[in-house]
Amino acid sequence: MQDCIFCQILQGRAEASIVYAEEKVTAFMDIQPVNLGHVLVIPNAHAAYLADLEQDTGAHLFRVAMEVSQAVRGAGVRCEGVNLFLADGEVAGQEVFHVHLHVFPRFKGDGFGLKFGPSYAVRPPRETLNKIAERIKAALRR
Amino acid sequence: MQDCIFCQILQGRAEASIVYAEEKVTAFMDIQPVNLGHVLVIPNAHAAYLADLEQDTGAHLFRVAMEVSQAVRGAGVRCEGVNLFLADGEVAGQEVFHVHLHVFPRFKGDGFGLKFGPSYAVRPPRETLNKIAERIKAALRR
Repeated sequence: MQDCIFCQILQGRAEASIVYAEEKVTAFMDIQPVNLGHVLVIPNAHAAYLADLEQDTGAHLFRVAMEVSQAVRGAGVRCEGVNLFLADGEVAGQEVFHVHLHVFPRFKGDGFGLKFGPSYAVRPPRETLNKIAERIKAALRR
Repeated sequence: MQDCIFCQILQGRAEASIVYAEEKVTAFMDIQPVNLGHVLVIPNAHAAYLADLEQDTGAHLFRVAMEVSQAVRGAGVRCEGVNLFLADGEVAGQEVFHVHLHVFPRFKGDGFGLKFGPSYAVRPPRETLNKIAERIKAALRR
């Protein structure tokens, strides 16, 4: 992908601070870290969305993210916890359309957090959850 | 784990709206959804933190999360994108100490978002990123 910045990084045509590189998956520092130590783990094969990602590669991506999580804890940056985050789709906050799993360290008072919309305050009744669960179950069987 | 609510769900001792259940991994509706259709994917074997989770199980967890992501898109809830989120450690926002990967639908104007601390505005110089990358790389080799 000519225009994909992550593909350019993988091809050595764009700069990056690589922490891990192998056949299927690469990890490098996010240039705008939530906190110092923020890593992106990506598949080498271009996949814009989760739906385009081979499941085995996704599984491996997560293995690497687990290892990176522990490594970040041992890398001398402030790290008392870790978040993993993935945005699939523009409305979900995806900005680079090559799948990437964020791994970033957290510490007390770092100011990071989640903002919730108005619906978050309302706990849906069990029957609503059951109904949606049935629909997701049906979709999983398809 | 007697006191773990997710273990209680797995044992059928607490209520849940299950969407997926097999030997290693289970998925059910979050009772306080970011948006309707919010699913938690968990390992069946109790693991408080990512560091306690077997890597193969983690990899499988992500496979299931990928499938659930697509299923949520096809389940008739508002879903124009999906976020995956995992909190590892209390300062990272973890509230139930049994690993769980959030999969939740997103739509335009849902009000969900990320809050960033003051350091987010500052892009670290490349040499800082390179230095941290070296330390993470070294930690990965250990």
